[in-house]
Amino acid sequence: MSVRGRTIGVFDSGVGGLTVLRTIHRLLPDRDTAYLGDTARVPYGTRSPETIVRYAVNAARFLVSREELGVFVIACNTASAVAVEAVAAAIPVPVIGVIEPTARHAARVSVGGRIGIIGTRGTIASGAYERAIHAARPEATTFAAACPLFVPLAEEGWTDPLDPVAELTARRYLLPLLAEGIDTLILGCTHYPLLGPVIRKVVGEKLVLCDASEAVAEDIRALASERSSWPAVSTPGRRYYLTDLPKGFRTVAERFLEGPISEPIEVDL
Amino acid sequence: MSVRGRTIGVFDSGVGGLTVLRTIHRLLPDRDTAYLGDTARVPYGTRSPETIVRYAVNAARFLVSREELGVFVIACNTASAVAVEAVAAAIPVPVIGVIEPTARHAARVSVGGRIGIIGTRGTIASGAYERAIHAARPEATTFAAACPLFVPLAEEGWTDPLDPVAELTARRYLLPLLAEGIDTLILGCTHYPLLGPVIRKVVGEKLVLCDASEAVAEDIRALASERSSWPAVSTPGRRYYLTDLPKGFRTVAERFLEGPISEPIEVDL
Repeated sequence: MSVRGRTIGVFDSGVGGLTVLRTIHRLLPDRDTAYLGDTARVPYGTRSPETIVRYAVNAARFLVSREELGVFVIACNTASAVAVEAVAAAIPVPVIGVIEPTARHAARVSVGGRIGIIGTRGTIASGAYERAIHAARPEATTFAAACPLFVPLAEEGWTDPLDPVAELTARRYLLPLLAEGIDTLILGCTHYPLLGPVIRKVVGEKLVLCDASEAVAEDIRALASERSSWPAVSTPGRRYYLTDLPKGFRTVAERFLEGPISEPIEVDL
Repeated sequence: MSVRGRTIGVFDSGVGGLTVLRTIHRLLPDRDTAYLGDTARVPYGTRSPETIVRYAVNAARFLVSREELGVFVIACNTASAVAVEAVAAAIPVPVIGVIEPTARHAARVSVGGRIGIIGTRGTIASGAYERAIHAARPEATTFAAACPLFVPLAEEGWTDPLDPVAELTARRYLLPLLAEGIDTLILGCTHYPLLGPVIRKVVGEKLVLCDASEAVAEDIRALASERSSWPAVSTPGRRYYLTDLPKGFRTVAERFLEGPISEPIEVDL
């Protein structure tokens, strides 16, 4: 595949993918980025796979039409579970989902092969992480837990490790996984890195936390290093496209990105 | 309107409306009921008003085709805010939403006219309760707060007043409303009655809690008393229609209804 664009496109059903974008900004600071959040149709978790594929393909085609993309990242776990292949077939740009790189990374770094997975009810019910882990490391043992309170905690900003609601909730979800002797934990939802400090407080220092955003950034870096035509830029552009501008979006977005963002552009997919 | 059917139809986007059904079972035990949960398309909060109206009208027509309805209750706050009139125009049966009866009841019972409203982000942003309260009592003062953690707390069953996560969360959401000197609080989401005991613990005994389900049951009782052709039945039937049978539905449903339910019937709208 000969790709000449150099903007990193990041697509999510809503704001959660901004945690992936934040890591990309941190690890690859000299790249243009364009974020597309399908905020008009979030959450995808309740849609049929056919609908999710259609939405993701539309989103990818839109971003290709507006940006010179070097890579298209599907930061949404739900869409990554069903739409990576269809999107890759629809656009002339490499596609990276969050599940496969994260599962592969966890399978590689886990010492004892006992890997915990936390995510939304939909992601956990799909079994997508377990399949990807076992593809990479067949003898691994996996333990999964849905954590439905984590997304609203992150969106409310109740994420301080000293916040008793955050800590008690994290303990209730995570202690059963720790009791299974896991040595590695996948944060299988883009919102969860915001709870990283409180999760770390509960699981202790020795457990390895696998955050999708770091695995994805590593894959992008590998892709960039293969391409002589993808030079760094000195003043990278950062653009935000949203299918709806919900009240309070900027507050939530700036919490996720830990800094101010440029005015989002409202688009119709 | 001459209505001869006698089944109480209760429609919701998902399982939340089961709290309304539970109160109907308690206050009107000798009536047939039929519940329709659009579990395939929940949540409605992220859909456009046009889509919600279409879904609600379809649901109403479906239930009319399957049951001899005496009344059609829209137990979903989101659908009640936009679809009551359209549904009433589409079916030959009286329609009751949750917002207007609850707001009217709160406006009547509030001593000082300082009324708090809690609900999902979408319901609070719509301002529908404020409008309905001011229509019933123009000089009332309203104070609204979105409580995004309450739905997942209810669905997880973390509702015990001794549960520290539930209590701390309730305190954080409700203390600012109490500081405004409210004397009445509307539970503006069908999930919230499950948190009734912990909410009561936080707000104290003197505050009046207005639960949609009781206001709706009162309206149904008034409707029934006007109609000589709506006699009680000795062994009332209770039927459950769902557009999708999600894993764990029965567990959640039986938590909401505080008792076992008959096998749900999966239907296509």
